[in-house]
Amino acid sequence: MEAKQISGGICAPQGFTAAGIHSGLRKNKDRKDLAMIKSSVSCSAAAVYTQNKVYGAPITVTRRNLADHQAQAVICNSGNAYTCLADGVELATKMCDLAADALGLRREDIIVASTGVIGMPFDIQPIADHVGQLAAQLSADGGHDAATAIMTTDTVPKEIAVEFTLGGRPCRIGAIAKGSGMIHPNMATMLSFITTDAAISPQMLDRSLREVVQDTYNMISVDGDTSTNDMVAIMANGLAGNPEIVVQDSDYQQFTAALRQIATVMARKIAGDGEGATRLLECTVCGAPDLQTARRVAKSVITSSLTKAAIFGADANWGRVLCAIGYTEGDFAVDRIAVSFSSPKGCIEVCRNGAGIAFSEEKAKEILLESEIHINIDMGLGAASATAWGCDLTYDYVKINGDYRT
Amino acid sequence: MEAKQISGGICAPQGFTAAGIHSGLRKNKDRKDLAMIKSSVSCSAAAVYTQNKVYGAPITVTRRNLADHQAQAVICNSGNAYTCLADGVELATKMCDLAADALGLRREDIIVASTGVIGMPFDIQPIADHVGQLAAQLSADGGHDAATAIMTTDTVPKEIAVEFTLGGRPCRIGAIAKGSGMIHPNMATMLSFITTDAAISPQMLDRSLREVVQDTYNMISVDGDTSTNDMVAIMANGLAGNPEIVVQDSDYQQFTAALRQIATVMARKIAGDGEGATRLLECTVCGAPDLQTARRVAKSVITSSLTKAAIFGADANWGRVLCAIGYTEGDFAVDRIAVSFSSPKGCIEVCRNGAGIAFSEEKAKEILLESEIHINIDMGLGAASATAWGCDLTYDYVKINGDYRT
Repeated sequence: MEAKQISGGICAPQGFTAAGIHSGLRKNKDRKDLAMIKSSVSCSAAAVYTQNKVYGAPITVTRRNLADHQAQAVICNSGNAYTCLADGVELATKMCDLAADALGLRREDIIVASTGVIGMPFDIQPIADHVGQLAAQLSADGGHDAATAIMTTDTVPKEIAVEFTLGGRPCRIGAIAKGSGMIHPNMATMLSFITTDAAISPQMLDRSLREVVQDTYNMISVDGDTSTNDMVAIMANGLAGNPEIVVQDSDYQQFTAALRQIATVMARKIAGDGEGATRLLECTVCGAPDLQTARRVAKSVITSSLTKAAIFGADANWGRVLCAIGYTEGDFAVDRIAVSFSSPKGCIEVCRNGAGIAFSEEKAKEILLESEIHINIDMGLGAASATAWGCDLTYDYVKINGDYRT
Repeated sequence: MEAKQISGGICAPQGFTAAGIHSGLRKNKDRKDLAMIKSSVSCSAAAVYTQNKVYGAPITVTRRNLADHQAQAVICNSGNAYTCLADGVELATKMCDLAADALGLRREDIIVASTGVIGMPFDIQPIADHVGQLAAQLSADGGHDAATAIMTTDTVPKEIAVEFTLGGRPCRIGAIAKGSGMIHPNMATMLSFITTDAAISPQMLDRSLREVVQDTYNMISVDGDTSTNDMVAIMANGLAGNPEIVVQDSDYQQFTAALRQIATVMARKIAGDGEGATRLLECTVCGAPDLQTARRVAKSVITSSLTKAAIFGADANWGRVLCAIGYTEGDFAVDRIAVSFSSPKGCIEVCRNGAGIAFSEEKAKEILLESEIHINIDMGLGAASATAWGCDLTYDYVKINGDYRT
């Protein structure tokens, strides 16, 4: 059963407050650039990070701070990633100090993250000047502001919360996330912060997060570029009062299902709001010989520039889908593949047994003009399946990235 | 010493004739769509093919025909790849029969290739109707027409020839090639046909081709999509009268150097004429720990959508270069990396020891506005180096591929 969607985002779980302000890191005064999330009590915490060998200083510092699997607050800025700077780690540590001082916490209890341009000199003064104001604004209504403050080229803030029951007690999970370029997570992902009031041990929290990330945040791609600053962090403060989850029992399964629900929504939101995107692309692969192949094929299709451009043009150019399946890593047969496109306007099969079949181009065009397009692939080889999310490749992607820094 | 560039393209080597005509496969009568190359005598032949598991029927048939390492002619059409069709192999075999009959050769001596849309029904009648005319037009002046007839979204035909000396005898190598989308060769590549009058055994020819392809055709990318129909084929007819190359001696080295020269020019031409491209991008990696890492890093950088879009915008966004280096497969240190951009307008260093350094944005912009941009990377780790070629990502790439089939 799906957990019930509720309002409140990351502040929906008990004990969490959040805020987002304009500190001056961005020149545009209408753009928030600094976010904070705080729990009233210490939390179990877990995180996954980018696999890029070039990674941001905040990744180094957060990894160090989470060594004890405990955290109580997040500070995150947008507008400057302060990555590839000689003094990056110093700056990230200083950010933790500033947040810790403002909140009366230890610096080791802070999760620090950043997003923005890589390699630009970073002036921390605006943060030093405004962290007190940020802390003062923390409130149970602040989740939306925090979601807004971490945006870069995102066109909409991304947040969600759900409620479900564990041991008779209502529990909540909330999340915010940001994309929307340099999105091709690899065993970790873009920025997303998740809060929950469920009681769960750090070990189970870590396991649950890793399990879910593989099928959600890691199954999206906007442009094939794995960011240097990807991070998904979760904090669980236990205030729901459920019996603490300490083994992989049915409560763990239920918690993980709710977390998966949250993460799937966030992943879809990030993909659909990819830079310049006009269409959300969902590729489902079934009949795969194994899970790894299913995931790889789904991701290969939604990453293909040619497929993405065809979807932008509402062109049922299924040959490009076959091509992307064919260059996927791994050894598998391609002579049983069936492909169909679907949307709220209907479903149309375009390929069977690896070869084209006659179809109405008009009907296909009608289906592909919708804002959410599904590419359904049956490999005809086994029972494994996977889903990946992407977006179309548009003029605006080029425009946004042809002159991002100015 | 570089081999001397000469005119004549694929017909520069003795004994080769070529032709290119409009047969009617394309609707536009001004577009040639069928090419033929013929040697007056039987040739040693070798080829490399796409590694895509979905591959065109002509690949299947050419592979079969070259099992005896002999060939005497090439037939290649553009406009329809007849790939992913139930009757593809039958059609490709028929094309060989048509060419063989028109030329008085055995069908096993024909190299057949195709390029164009995948999965569209293919009517072979225009070829049957015009193959006689095509054969009749074969001439020593026909190389350019053949180069034109294999074009798809290419904006210019691509051809080259060089002359060098083996055993006191002048030898020549000529080549044509086509891009310009779905270009991300993987141990094989887009279409290119190479002719030579050098005498070389099939075994040495195959070795030389494979050696060269790795550093040239396989080091380019336009869009990360490995085509289903990639093929590079070479025919050597021995008419130069040099002592046949049968071992890896100095003649072999000299032949391979000339072939590398040819292949490098073709690779650069294909990359520079990538779909929608306004700039050729050359990335040279030195100081790499090993050759594989050097190649991977160079290719990762020129494949990155974000780097390509930045180059389109003449934006010295070197953080994206670092990001692409960082997500390259393999385990290596990134703290000694130096990066510079150069063009005929000068050279500017932007990153040293993995961190940004102050530079003039104005000067960088001036450099990046040129039509050929070099990204120079020194990894500071070893002695291996490699070069890869790509192009910028532009509005026109999206335009071309958003509605390619109509």
